Amino acid sequence: MKGITVWRDALAGRKIRETGDMLRDNGLSIVSLCRGGFFPGTNKVKRKAAIDDNRKAIEEAFELGTDKIVLVCGADPSQSLKESRKQIFEGISSLLTDAKAAGVKLAIEPLHPMYADTRSAINTIGQANDMAESIDSKYVGVAVDVYHLWWDPDLKKEIMRCGKNNKLFAFHICDWKSPTVDMLNDRGLMGEGCIPIRKIRSWVEEAGFKGFIEVEIFSNIYWQQDQSEFLKKVVSAFKDHA
Amino acid sequence: MKGITVWRDALAGRKIRETGDMLRDNGLSIVSLCRGGFFPGTNKVKRKAAIDDNRKAIEEAFELGTDKIVLVCGADPSQSLKESRKQIFEGISSLLTDAKAAGVKLAIEPLHPMYADTRSAINTIGQANDMAESIDSKYVGVAVDVYHLWWDPDLKKEIMRCGKNNKLFAFHICDWKSPTVDMLNDRGLMGEGCIPIRKIRSWVEEAGFKGFIEVEIFSNIYWQQDQSEFLKKVVSAFKDHA
Repeated sequence: MKGITVWRDALAGRKIRETGDMLRDNGLSIVSLCRGGFFPGTNKVKRKAAIDDNRKAIEEAFELGTDKIVLVCGADPSQSLKESRKQIFEGISSLLTDAKAAGVKLAIEPLHPMYADTRSAINTIGQANDMAESIDSKYVGVAVDVYHLWWDPDLKKEIMRCGKNNKLFAFHICDWKSPTVDMLNDRGLMGEGCIPIRKIRSWVEEAGFKGFIEVEIFSNIYWQQDQSEFLKKVVSAFKDHA
Repeated sequence: MKGITVWRDALAGRKIRETGDMLRDNGLSIVSLCRGGFFPGTNKVKRKAAIDDNRKAIEEAFELGTDKIVLVCGADPSQSLKESRKQIFEGISSLLTDAKAAGVKLAIEPLHPMYADTRSAINTIGQANDMAESIDSKYVGVAVDVYHLWWDPDLKKEIMRCGKNNKLFAFHICDWKSPTVDMLNDRGLMGEGCIPIRKIRSWVEEAGFKGFIEVEIFSNIYWQQDQSEFLKKVVSAFKDHA
């Protein structure tokens, strides 16, 4: 089984339906569309625009032929995390009708606490579980990314809780390098760092997850290399360390 | 009331007792010695050496005339966080007799999860509370630093728990800038970032903390400036935002 998550910026200038067909013709399942979210903001007009853009993402996911969108929920450093979390709740809640109509599920991705200022006010899987449970729709669940969550002492417990609720929608892997020299784009290939990827994978599978194990390596270093070579390294690292 | 925490590297080549007297003669209380810790490691000999070094730190604190050491507990990326946490427990436990004899308290400082690979396997105040409670000595408590903990949805609850147990030993402030361009040395002056410092201070004081509010700004930017000017900015930012 081969699959890919499509980023929205990669769709710019393309016909979406045909792009989906092209990927499938090349033997790839489309795991999800990345990304929706970024709901919080002090400006009501912008918050409304963000919700509209998420509706558009749901349409795009439908056209592309995937049943999932990854949500990077957003945060606004000029307001409290509590307020941002409230706005995330409101934003996701306002999308449920569209999500159901399109058959597209929304996966809340908790982001590492180092992104709590601008990228996401949802920083632990416990918070993502709380949010998904309080929204209480089968169209809303959680995306587990080892990079964001590996340090959490409650990780296993919260993965089990997530699986038990049928809310474990996606699983992303890479590694945490020591030292990490860039806060966004210095992720490592599996095996290059200290994340217990196999152990976390075993928890995710024990929790009932049967979807794709997605490799997601933001890296200024690897992106500068030949991408076919990079892909070979990814495959090799996956076999050895995931 | 004026106070200062002394870093151990600043004591190199100085007579410790005389340094303490000099600081007190200049009207400064010595809040704590920074830092002990760094207990974990795969090598038993090195772990023993770390404990010995912490004993030395306790002696230094006694000579300097302060009753507190801040512990940056350490982590070793080549072993699991669970193992590192076990070694931290063992390390701190083995220091209790010395701490008691010297009248020096040990403050576990939970560090931001972005430091979980090499600097500390204790990454939330909840974990620090758990550790301090399980060690169960009045010589072991917690140092609360807003930079490390501001994102935590359980922060208020855990500050209250910490205070209730008489384990809130220290309080450090600075700010989280957006963007933060260096993972270690890009902290902001109070007011330059998104941390709700006054709110967290109010929780800490509600929890019964009566000690110094310490400003700790690791910053390549500010360290390059005239340090007297920097100190003026610190005082001004403290008055306006802390």
